[in-house]
Amino acid sequence: MLRGYSVPRSPEGRSSLVPAPPWHYVGDFLVLEYWADPGAVAAVLPPGLEPSPDPGRCAALFVDWQSCSDSGAELDDPIRSQYREFFVVVNALLDGEAVTTCPYIWVDRDFALARGWMQGFPKKLGSIQMTRHFPQAGKAAPALASGGRFAGTLAAGDRRLAFGAVTLERESDQGPTHNDPPLVNVRHFPRLEAGRHDEPAVHELVRARSRDRTISPIWEGKAELELYPAPNEELAALAPVRLGRGFRFTFGYTVDDLETVRDYTSVEAKAAVQP
Amino acid sequence: MLRGYSVPRSPEGRSSLVPAPPWHYVGDFLVLEYWADPGAVAAVLPPGLEPSPDPGRCAALFVDWQSCSDSGAELDDPIRSQYREFFVVVNALLDGEAVTTCPYIWVDRDFALARGWMQGFPKKLGSIQMTRHFPQAGKAAPALASGGRFAGTLAAGDRRLAFGAVTLERESDQGPTHNDPPLVNVRHFPRLEAGRHDEPAVHELVRARSRDRTISPIWEGKAELELYPAPNEELAALAPVRLGRGFRFTFGYTVDDLETVRDYTSVEAKAAVQP
Amino acid sequence: MLRGYSVPRSPEGRSSLVPAPPWHYVGDFLVLEYWADPGAVAAVLPPGLEPSPDPGRCAALFVDWQSCSDSGAELDDPIRSQYREFFVVVNALLDGEAVTTCPYIWVDRDFALARGWMQGFPKKLGSIQMTRHFPQAGKAAPALASGGRFAGTLAAGDRRLAFGAVTLERESDQGPTHNDPPLVNVRHFPRLEAGRHDEPAVHELVRARSRDRTISPIWEGKAELELYPAPNEELAALAPVRLGRGFRFTFGYTVDDLETVRDYTSVEAKAAVQP
Amino acid sequence: MLRGYSVPRSPEGRSSLVPAPPWHYVGDFLVLEYWADPGAVAAVLPPGLEPSPDPGRCAALFVDWQSCSDSGAELDDPIRSQYREFFVVVNALLDGEAVTTCPYIWVDRDFALARGWMQGFPKKLGSIQMTRHFPQAGKAAPALASGGRFAGTLAAGDRRLAFGAVTLERESDQGPTHNDPPLVNVRHFPRLEAGRHDEPAVHELVRARSRDRTISPIWEGKAELELYPAPNEELAALAPVRLGRGFRFTFGYTVDDLETVRDYTSVEAKAAVQP
Repeated sequence: MLRGYSVPRSPEGRSSLVPAPPWHYVGDFLVLEYWADPGAVAAVLPPGLEPSPDPGRCAALFVDWQSCSDSGAELDDPIRSQYREFFVVVNALLDGEAVTTCPYIWVDRDFALARGWMQGFPKKLGSIQMTRHFPQAGKAAPALASGGRFAGTLAAGDRRLAFGAVTLERESDQGPTHNDPPLVNVRHFPRLEAGRHDEPAVHELVRARSRDRTISPIWEGKAELELYPAPNEELAALAPVRLGRGFRFTFGYTVDDLETVRDYTSVEAKAAVQP
Repeated sequence: MLRGYSVPRSPEGRSSLVPAPPWHYVGDFLVLEYWADPGAVAAVLPPGLEPSPDPGRCAALFVDWQSCSDSGAELDDPIRSQYREFFVVVNALLDGEAVTTCPYIWVDRDFALARGWMQGFPKKLGSIQMTRHFPQAGKAAPALASGGRFAGTLAAGDRRLAFGAVTLERESDQGPTHNDPPLVNVRHFPRLEAGRHDEPAVHELVRARSRDRTISPIWEGKAELELYPAPNEELAALAPVRLGRGFRFTFGYTVDDLETVRDYTSVEAKAAVQP
Repeated sequence: MLRGYSVPRSPEGRSSLVPAPPWHYVGDFLVLEYWADPGAVAAVLPPGLEPSPDPGRCAALFVDWQSCSDSGAELDDPIRSQYREFFVVVNALLDGEAVTTCPYIWVDRDFALARGWMQGFPKKLGSIQMTRHFPQAGKAAPALASGGRFAGTLAAGDRRLAFGAVTLERESDQGPTHNDPPLVNVRHFPRLEAGRHDEPAVHELVRARSRDRTISPIWEGKAELELYPAPNEELAALAPVRLGRGFRFTFGYTVDDLETVRDYTSVEAKAAVQP
Repeated sequence: MLRGYSVPRSPEGRSSLVPAPPWHYVGDFLVLEYWADPGAVAAVLPPGLEPSPDPGRCAALFVDWQSCSDSGAELDDPIRSQYREFFVVVNALLDGEAVTTCPYIWVDRDFALARGWMQGFPKKLGSIQMTRHFPQAGKAAPALASGGRFAGTLAAGDRRLAFGAVTLERESDQGPTHNDPPLVNVRHFPRLEAGRHDEPAVHELVRARSRDRTISPIWEGKAELELYPAPNEELAALAPVRLGRGFRFTFGYTVDDLETVRDYTSVEAKAAVQP
């Protein structure tokens, strides 16, 4: 019998690219709050979401993650435990409730890519780099203090796609708000049968669930963000028209659940038989 | 409206990690025919497949691929076009018909990983290296001629997992046979909803379809193959107990279809309510 | 006793990053002939070289290499044998003789970087991608025939730095000429002793030597070339102001010698004591 | 005029792979003290060094570095600032003084490789992974506390070469001692002129100098270390025969000097003319 949460499923279940949930995470975050062109934000909303009353509200996030399954075995073989990530969330309404959704996201490891797809994150591989904090601040390491500067970069397909930075000013009372509303994403897995390429096997709006959330003190300051075009990317359509604040902190949580909010496949099936 | 065959789906449809089929491929193949422990082969068969009457019959394949969609745009940006791959196929019977199935496979690009999942190939990322042929044979390049030696290596997770080689003897009359029967794979996409981790959203046996197949002359010779263990891999259970012949050739085809042979999800649903 | 041609030198001499010469090479070449701003070309000439009478004459080359030492062991472990490369050569005069020199070059493997430094190639690491030719031409592979299109890209530091392409028209009578004159480069290895950072330990003009050169038929056609800026690169100063022809072919040779043309260190020593 | 501390030297001096010193560093260290076979340690000593009175004394170090030049520009583009490193130091005597020397070392970035060569570190590229510490300890991140476990792995050439780990017990009074003596290394840059491959252009014993050293509190505990063989490596000859203690801490310093202790080239020149 083949075992395992994900492919490749195998006799002992040790081969799965993504081990079974729960998945435990901790990461250093760089959050850059901003507003994009409202029309560009509206254009990336999945069916059922309406534009936010604060039009164009977005956040860009760089995260340096460490994660593991319950066994913790990945921590002893860190190439299976660590990854870096860049993503954008846009703000919207779902049935009148404020939500966020992630149109674009990149990570630098296969297990994180696949685990993201399972959660509705539309991940590609990229190269994400982030200024690190060390307890010995100095010329080679910014302090978590006023004037400390933390940057992040994203490249994919051998092209630079994003640069962000925050220059710290003070500990934050409130923390970031643009990425605060509940996250809804689209799980999508295509069909390859001829004639049915437009009928994905999985196509559903899902709502993220997590538990055991912990967070460090949050620093905030002046934000910078640039998004660059590429032939096979549409990220730059969400470039900032106005910048908010930037934030840096450490956050951890555990994921082993997901709520399906809407199944798009029945809608598609119906649409498919209509003129 | 969001467009695109795969995530990320976007307003213009340019962002998809995997562009819409058809997908055109050409690749240099190194095929190593062998027999593994019959019990180990039986243990990787998906439900509905029976052991081959030639017990333990397998092939290991290294492939250096170039691929593109109908636009061919990827050929002008080769990082989106090329990848290398290692996989094993095992032989089996499906309703009495000889078939092959792929239990383990690695590629070195994200688009190839995702495109594989859509076809039922249980891909992970790895580093695949293959001796190249050049028209100017010499000390730095083996000839497609008797004595020419072509090797391949696989690593994943920073561990060497496979080595294979063929030392050419002659043009082959028949070509490889261990990978000849129709290929059936398992498409699998998990569910994350709590309590339903064992009920994948997609779980089906599929049969590969392709067209416009072309093949170069085939060279054959003595085969070598070694598979090495790793904590999170079960590939080495399929290590050779007997070696057959090795083959080298170039092969191209087009894929835009797939046949679902059996939907496992209904079976699972039934099994789930039974003791 | 420590053995080996390069560091790390070790008891058995098996550890050297660069094995002892001779080094045997074969590679697929994409050569794009062009002219850059003559002032920009003059600015990259090492001491002793004068501008070419054909001002601004340059060539950009993408190469997909396979190489090995006399043992050929690297061909059985191709990660130690293969690399891709992008470089520019500019034309100049040395004591009245037409020569070329390489101001900028990138490769994708450590052994090739170090071997290049030993030959006076100022290599950095980059990601070089090139459209491949396969014997089975088709939608996924251009033919070596009129209309066949071969592209190359360079990225380094997560930024795209170059794009080049040739659209083939016919077999070439003459082949490329912009990279034809003898190649002279600068071997340079710094000193770290305080107060002497400006006195490199090795600083000499060298002239490449090679033997056992072989070349395939050469195809030529229309050339395209774009060079892009980056904060830590000056490649874009050599961007084309006029394009020549493009060429594609396979070339092999062996290297185990180098001629020192001029030792700059004595000049520097003298200059250092002068006002 | 060409400017820059290292190749490629360029009109504006912005292209150099290694910017001019001083170089500022900070890094998280995992130090594993051990003893190797004394004969194997003696075999890697450069000329002029004698075995330590504590035969076979070694340390293996994993380091997660961030570094920059005086401008600090690299911190805003972290791909030019960060790298990971694995190396071994062995203990020896130089003119009766306890010293250490580094026979083997791997890093994951080109600038670090080249900067290492300039300091006498015989660097190759590798993949180095290390368990990270985060301020939010939990299932995904070990605490800097008794029971916290930090691991490191090294791979190069697609082969796993080392595993190390420390399970913390307490803050350390003394800190590590096996890597404490002054570090002497060999700067070596080969010659390629035919007939003189055995006469390196640079071959000298150098003594590291640094300043502005800072260090965090040090944790210590039980050490684990395994070194694995590879065809083109001799690291495994230095595998542990006895383990000491393990340590974890953060350390920063600045480098802009180096002392030449012995010039081997004059010795070689003499030896070359003798029978």
